[in-house]
Amino acid sequence: MNQDYIIPNEWSILEEGFDAKMVKSSESLFSIGNGAMGQRANFEEKYTGETFQGSYIAGVYYPDKTRVGWWKNGYPEYFAKVLNAPNWIGINVKINEEELDLHACKSVSNFKRELNMKEGWLARSFEAVLQNDIKIKVDTKRFLSLELDEVGAIEYNVTPVNEDCKITFSPYLDAGITNEDTNWDDQFWDVLEVTQNNQQSYIEAKTMKTNFHTCTFMESRLFINDNEVITGCNNNKTSNYTACHYQQEIKKNETYTIHKFGGYVVDRNHKKDELVAAAKDILDKAVSFGFEAMLETQKNSWAEIWNMSDITIDGDVKAQQGIRFNIFQLNQTYLGTDISLNIGPKGFTGEKYGGSTYWDTEAYCIPFYMATKDQSVARTLLEYRYNHLEKAIENAAKLGFKNGAALYPMVTMNGEECHNEWEITFEEIHRNGAIAFAIFNYYRFTDDYSYIPEKGLEVLIGIARFWHQRVNFSTDKNKYVMLGVTGPNEYENNINNNWYTNYIAKWCLEYTLKNIEIVKVDHISDYIRIKEKTNFTDEELASFKDVADNMYFPYSEKHDVYLQQDGFLDKELITVADLDKSQRPINQKWSWDRILRSPYIKQADVLQGFYMFENDFSTEELERHFDFYEPFTVHESSLSPCVHSIQAAKLNRMDQAYEFYLRTSRLDLDDYNHEVEEGLHITSMAGTWMSIVEGFGGMRVLDNTLSFSPKIPNQWDSYSFKVNFRNQVITVKVSKKGTHFELDGKNEVKILVNGEITTISPNNLQTA
Amino acid sequence: MNQDYIIPNEWSILEEGFDAKMVKSSESLFSIGNGAMGQRANFEEKYTGETFQGSYIAGVYYPDKTRVGWWKNGYPEYFAKVLNAPNWIGINVKINEEELDLHACKSVSNFKRELNMKEGWLARSFEAVLQNDIKIKVDTKRFLSLELDEVGAIEYNVTPVNEDCKITFSPYLDAGITNEDTNWDDQFWDVLEVTQNNQQSYIEAKTMKTNFHTCTFMESRLFINDNEVITGCNNNKTSNYTACHYQQEIKKNETYTIHKFGGYVVDRNHKKDELVAAAKDILDKAVSFGFEAMLETQKNSWAEIWNMSDITIDGDVKAQQGIRFNIFQLNQTYLGTDISLNIGPKGFTGEKYGGSTYWDTEAYCIPFYMATKDQSVARTLLEYRYNHLEKAIENAAKLGFKNGAALYPMVTMNGEECHNEWEITFEEIHRNGAIAFAIFNYYRFTDDYSYIPEKGLEVLIGIARFWHQRVNFSTDKNKYVMLGVTGPNEYENNINNNWYTNYIAKWCLEYTLKNIEIVKVDHISDYIRIKEKTNFTDEELASFKDVADNMYFPYSEKHDVYLQQDGFLDKELITVADLDKSQRPINQKWSWDRILRSPYIKQADVLQGFYMFENDFSTEELERHFDFYEPFTVHESSLSPCVHSIQAAKLNRMDQAYEFYLRTSRLDLDDYNHEVEEGLHITSMAGTWMSIVEGFGGMRVLDNTLSFSPKIPNQWDSYSFKVNFRNQVITVKVSKKGTHFELDGKNEVKILVNGEITTISPNNLQTA
Repeated sequence: MNQDYIIPNEWSILEEGFDAKMVKSSESLFSIGNGAMGQRANFEEKYTGETFQGSYIAGVYYPDKTRVGWWKNGYPEYFAKVLNAPNWIGINVKINEEELDLHACKSVSNFKRELNMKEGWLARSFEAVLQNDIKIKVDTKRFLSLELDEVGAIEYNVTPVNEDCKITFSPYLDAGITNEDTNWDDQFWDVLEVTQNNQQSYIEAKTMKTNFHTCTFMESRLFINDNEVITGCNNNKTSNYTACHYQQEIKKNETYTIHKFGGYVVDRNHKKDELVAAAKDILDKAVSFGFEAMLETQKNSWAEIWNMSDITIDGDVKAQQGIRFNIFQLNQTYLGTDISLNIGPKGFTGEKYGGSTYWDTEAYCIPFYMATKDQSVARTLLEYRYNHLEKAIENAAKLGFKNGAALYPMVTMNGEECHNEWEITFEEIHRNGAIAFAIFNYYRFTDDYSYIPEKGLEVLIGIARFWHQRVNFSTDKNKYVMLGVTGPNEYENNINNNWYTNYIAKWCLEYTLKNIEIVKVDHISDYIRIKEKTNFTDEELASFKDVADNMYFPYSEKHDVYLQQDGFLDKELITVADLDKSQRPINQKWSWDRILRSPYIKQADVLQGFYMFENDFSTEELERHFDFYEPFTVHESSLSPCVHSIQAAKLNRMDQAYEFYLRTSRLDLDDYNHEVEEGLHITSMAGTWMSIVEGFGGMRVLDNTLSFSPKIPNQWDSYSFKVNFRNQVITVKVSKKGTHFELDGKNEVKILVNGEITTISPNNLQTA
Repeated sequence: MNQDYIIPNEWSILEEGFDAKMVKSSESLFSIGNGAMGQRANFEEKYTGETFQGSYIAGVYYPDKTRVGWWKNGYPEYFAKVLNAPNWIGINVKINEEELDLHACKSVSNFKRELNMKEGWLARSFEAVLQNDIKIKVDTKRFLSLELDEVGAIEYNVTPVNEDCKITFSPYLDAGITNEDTNWDDQFWDVLEVTQNNQQSYIEAKTMKTNFHTCTFMESRLFINDNEVITGCNNNKTSNYTACHYQQEIKKNETYTIHKFGGYVVDRNHKKDELVAAAKDILDKAVSFGFEAMLETQKNSWAEIWNMSDITIDGDVKAQQGIRFNIFQLNQTYLGTDISLNIGPKGFTGEKYGGSTYWDTEAYCIPFYMATKDQSVARTLLEYRYNHLEKAIENAAKLGFKNGAALYPMVTMNGEECHNEWEITFEEIHRNGAIAFAIFNYYRFTDDYSYIPEKGLEVLIGIARFWHQRVNFSTDKNKYVMLGVTGPNEYENNINNNWYTNYIAKWCLEYTLKNIEIVKVDHISDYIRIKEKTNFTDEELASFKDVADNMYFPYSEKHDVYLQQDGFLDKELITVADLDKSQRPINQKWSWDRILRSPYIKQADVLQGFYMFENDFSTEELERHFDFYEPFTVHESSLSPCVHSIQAAKLNRMDQAYEFYLRTSRLDLDDYNHEVEEGLHITSMAGTWMSIVEGFGGMRVLDNTLSFSPKIPNQWDSYSFKVNFRNQVITVKVSKKGTHFELDGKNEVKILVNGEITTISPNNLQTA
């Protein structure tokens, strides 16, 4: 780990003491979001120290010019960039004539931050002595409403401690913002109008090129010792900025308070010419509720979320804090309410990585959302890809594929590819398999077959067609081979016969054929519609089968393992344990060619296949492959430890499983990768959840039955998790003595516990 | 071919008729250069049509910011860019009040261009009717002096045809120029001072970042009907521009003439603070010679070049024009007079490709320069790499290599790598082998062993160390393997065991060991110095031998050929002949992944090895490999046809050899690749020379003896070429009846002709 200043606590992320060096790290860790917008934990008041300012609106992005060494045919023309949005949280604070700025004070004491995950708010308090020797106490709290997801609220209290003074609050909106990661010094926002209307301020702006219209807005209320001060707004504005100024003489020990309400409305949800009206509506509503009532609602909203998704861990506060942080951040990022959104790898916490949608969604996030939300949320995530099917077909066509073959993008905002490295864009095609697998996984878990005839089968056919055309027959091997791919282990590029990719391709072909058969029998009208739309023929399906039946899989007799790719055994097979520590992490220490020719594995690759297709292999086979590959795995992807934790747990290697768990759950809190300043690793957080539920809890769906084989790490007294299985919530509590099940629902459920059928009844604690 | 407007002629490149669409193509084809500077054939007068303006100074470049998708460790920070230099050729021409501009005239007739390759000058003539209805006749001639390589001269004649008029010549210098290919809209030149001194004008400027100081200069003389007009210079200047204005009333049918002298002096050859003085010196010298005398000298200089390098072809004007164009351009680009220069792939004809030095120099250009110039020129090219040895060692160290291992850059200006695609920069390492091979080739041809103990052996040791560390032992194959390389065929990236790379690596190790032995015995003081400097040990040398003895070479029993790389036979082996023509060229029609997984070969790869190490293989082996690989070769590199032409000739496939020859020799004239606008393919022009001398002429050095096995294409009556072999020039004339040899030198030479020893005596025609 690279930091340990976050104070362990079961429900909150806590920081005590002001350290300018940690400001950017805390700005990431204390980020807040509500699925529709989010923001780094930037201070409301002016701060001249090092900071990374970021406010983000879901689905509002910018097509940055692609920059590559040499252009290659098929490259996308742009790289969708997560876009820093106008700042609405700012409140400049003046004490007499001096601007409050923690970087310029004489001293700062009793600095505390709390991100209360149970209730969904961020608080900060401190005392500061200014250059003018006035000492003040500041308490702030803010949240982004889950209930009204276009608005947030801030309470900002200032109390002079040593003398009376004049305090000015200047809440503002600022559209003069930039991105940290701009390539070309582009301007991103075109401000259309800055308006002031009584107490309300609006900035209408549109993004350049993408033309997303937004209105950023604010309104404030003032209080002295909780008594509202009715006052006019003394305001000023420029072409991209507007501020109000509320000045009061405040006596020593009196508290001057501002409640600021603000947020964004966007043209995804409103007509372009009604954005200001929509902003006014939402402000009127928020102001009429008031800060306290909105906060109460916020607590209730989060209580509902936790009720379905909480995981408790007794006896290990850091592990407890870690898992809740992960669940909290996932819920801040995506709530499944908007079909056009997805789960960006950094959520609303930073700008790194363009685009919002990676295979992370299907491979890592869907299990979490499926089990902790209404199953419609997972279906919404599947439909997101269905809605992009046409673009995936166009994308494949750009690369020379025909006849409706679909290649989903590696990275996307709107269905178009927006990544531009040939070895990824064109070759990391296993992503297509994950999208098909998610369809299977959804049906397996929810038993909702309807998605497949309605939408999923078309996606499966497009994907199967891609695999069918992507292989070629090797007369040398007398098998179908897949040349020039990058597997999940991105420390290998342009390899031949990546076992994982070949395996998932074969599986996709077979799963597609199987579902065509089912739909043909059970959903005949869908079958006719799909056959007409996609024009598949019996010859084509026979050819799918031929490829699936004759796929080549690299294999070593000597080691009795499938090989990650052709030629893997030609490498110098020195394990990570025997690698000089000064060489780690290799992605910072080594040139790319050296990484590529080494045996080191960034994240599960063959083992990713053993995770996804577990039932196809015996535990002995898993153990053999785990023992062969894990020693070469450097886990330099945030997505790596979780799969290994689950497999280590399955293999009864609980110490190893626990170590991997801790690494995944506290990756950001302890900043393992020395990059938390840039934002959080949101999608891998779902892997943490899997580590507990699928790893320690051993949850699977086997033959349509929910199954558990609970284990517990030595370090824990007990732990519990909740699973929404087919609209009933099952709480599983595991201690060293045994496992209890509790069902919140109407119908009894038969489950498997360590392979034994057990029946759990509603509201009845069941011990197994 | 994509164009055929160039008129066939034995000694000149000719264009007749003005076609605005061909202007950029002709600007490339009619480029002139003198090794120290060069320029595209831009018009002197204003031209508002589409044009690509370019003037280039050898060794003056700019470090453009590298732009890549995702940064990878080891990438260079910049990409050296060939830099457009201040324009000194410009002469604006006013007829009464109207500016002469071929794009804005009423009509242009009798437009002609001639690039006279025999004498080294460019001429243009035309008649134009201006918007003011004045008809004028224009004749221009210009050249860049070989004798005084800092200066060029222009004669510009205007004759009013239909009425008297006022003519103004405004010769100017312009440093407000940009590059066509700028990535970041950077400014490249910082103008220091613009000076006017009597008739002389100077612009001192330095390149930003690289700080190359230059002075661009001009001086003019005026004539009416060849009588000098003594006139003051009416001038104006700005911060980066200076012009003189010479106005005269000219009668109908009188000719107004300007002689403009101009060029560059650079701080590589002069002190920074003496640049203006140096410019003045060279101008004074040029002006005192005058245009005609300088032109006479120019003709003599070129006569000397042709005397040693001319190739004649009888019965095929296009072939004759092609080969002279190639020889001419090579001599315009590089003359071996400056140790810091090298042969850029576009010479002075365009900006594409950064850097000036590729493996092209060693693999393609050195044989040409070795046989058509004093052998010191080839030695200078070798020393260029010796001087970069320290940087090559640093470059290897950046990639993790130790102990003095050297990796020469893929692309360079000053020894530092300046290319930035991982699959090339880090993996196309066979370039290192070509640099060692050139040392062997130089000694083989010149018999000058002194270079090896003096300098070459240190280079060989650095290169051998690189190969020794770059392989790893595969326990699976029980051989040394080389993983993750890109061979000469750049349509394969990150492949394992590229046969060519493995072969040249083995050869380098063995050749290094052999020369260490020789130097140890015959040059003991050099041996002691080198051993102390490089610290090689007996163990290290033994390990070199172990790697060389146990190198793995992929091989197919079935086809009885070495495989281009591991897994080549897994590809779908459809020959180019069976590939739909609409798919060609694949580098424009296909996405990169599709190219990579196809069997198609960009340029000779295995066959490049058979070319370089010809003596290691039988003709039957060559034939088998040629028959296996050529059918998959798309020849989409300008370096491809020549090697195949040589091998086809060796295999007595003269029609095929001729076809490849024509393609290489007229690649630019006929614009086969549809890109001649961007500049010429200079380095591949040396391959054209090899096609005739080594291909049709069958020239080799076998056991220290010059050997020929002459053949002649059906299409030709006869052809001849000259070879400077060990300071004597042998002219070889081949006709259908036989071959004649003529020796210009003092000592008789024993040569092999079709395997038979023949003695040729000075100045005595010898028939074989």
